[in-house]
Amino acid sequence: MPTLYHSPNSRSSRVIAQLMLMGKLDAVEVVIVDVPRHDGAGRRDPRNPHPEGKVPYLVTDEGVGIRESAAIMIYLDELFGQPFSPKMGEATRGAYLSWMAYSGGVLEPVLVAAFSGLDHPALAETFRGMAEVAAELERALHTAPYLLGQGLSVADILLASPFQWAPHLMPDSAVIKDWVARVGAELDGDALAAFETEAMLHIAAEEVA
Amino acid sequence: MPTLYHSPNSRSSRVIAQLMLMGKLDAVEVVIVDVPRHDGAGRRDPRNPHPEGKVPYLVTDEGVGIRESAAIMIYLDELFGQPFSPKMGEATRGAYLSWMAYSGGVLEPVLVAAFSGLDHPALAETFRGMAEVAAELERALHTAPYLLGQGLSVADILLASPFQWAPHLMPDSAVIKDWVARVGAELDGDALAAFETEAMLHIAAEEVA
Ligand SMILES: N[C@@H](CCC(=O)N[C@@H](CS)C(=O)NCC(=O)O)C(=O)O
Ligand SMILES: N[C@@H](CCC(=O)N[C@@H](CS)C(=O)NCC(=O)O)C(=O)O
Repeated sequence: MPTLYHSPNSRSSRVIAQLMLMGKLDAVEVVIVDVPRHDGAGRRDPRNPHPEGKVPYLVTDEGVGIRESAAIMIYLDELFGQPFSPKMGEATRGAYLSWMAYSGGVLEPVLVAAFSGLDHPALAETFRGMAEVAAELERALHTAPYLLGQGLSVADILLASPFQWAPHLMPDSAVIKDWVARVGAELDGDALAAFETEAMLHIAAEEVA
Repeated sequence: MPTLYHSPNSRSSRVIAQLMLMGKLDAVEVVIVDVPRHDGAGRRDPRNPHPEGKVPYLVTDEGVGIRESAAIMIYLDELFGQPFSPKMGEATRGAYLSWMAYSGGVLEPVLVAAFSGLDHPALAETFRGMAEVAAELERALHTAPYLLGQGLSVADILLASPFQWAPHLMPDSAVIKDWVARVGAELDGDALAAFETEAMLHIAAEEVA
């Protein structure tokens, strides 16, 4: 069974949401670990094998460590028969790969800069900014409810997630807001919230012990 | 036939190197476009359909646009039967996906910051820095000649490329230097150089016209 290192209310929560959607949460061993938080809480957790102590981190049955949300989510979807991604050779395969690479390669750096009020020509040149992110999402969502067309995919779960966690960074665009809400409605918000509360209590208990 | 938008001596050169290695350069239509360069030369090319005027950009037979080097290289490798990547279910599949996501999601932001002398806590927190990049590469390369083990893969072509183009950013590590040289030796440097010279002349001729 693969092992997922997860910390509640973090970038690994989208992987939990994906596993729940696939009905595969019990096909993965989830280890709850702590991470340093923005507010100064938390700490690097010695039980987390991620080379930099981050989450998510997945260790496969062969003992291979996988880092980066996009890679972990592609891998888990493949492991369970690709229920939420286009197969090789399908027409939307390229768009899927493009969005998955865009997530870590553009969306995350742009959001980190926006979140931190960091404005630097080298970042703007390489990653552009929120206006381009909004335009890119809108181009896809003007003609279809989800990034790849009619059906929800792993790309929607990954790319909508930052706006679910930081709604103030959401572009002021009805098309994007509707999409984030639509993706949220496909996920089991109550089950996720309950799981995260449980995980938080687990960390708190360990901190005391 | 898919169309690759390419500008010589840029991030799209690694895609040309990949196509040459597969012997598939003539199975893709390569359109040479200009891009703004660091030194002020070049300009955004109206013929480039990339939403932000960047390269590489690939348009598939179905008219789907793919951005981000990692996505384009995974896609092209799949299109031609996966000669340089592990198939789904193979033991190194997860490591492959991890390195491909790491390339745009960590290596590029870290290199852009290092290149620009940009030092900011939000970047360091999210992406860490060159020391962690070096450690990550070394961990894989201490035990094997290539990132996935004994054989060259798309991950090597992608991740070694920035150090081929900007050797001054190469970590001071014999293991990494040897790997970059090893990957370079697998690629046809002469053919690539000739192709790029031709492409440069093409752009210069268009600028005059
Ligand atoms: N691009 C990575 C980012 C991972 C990341 O930065 N995760 C945060 C959690 S939100 C973390 O572990 N932070 C703690 C730390 O950096 O020490 C991914 O999506 O997997
Ligand atoms: N992460 C992207 C980066 C693409 C990129 O920034 N390409 C540069 C060429 S080296 C470019 O087109 N620059 C021109 C511009 O930003 O306008 C990728 O690897 O595909």
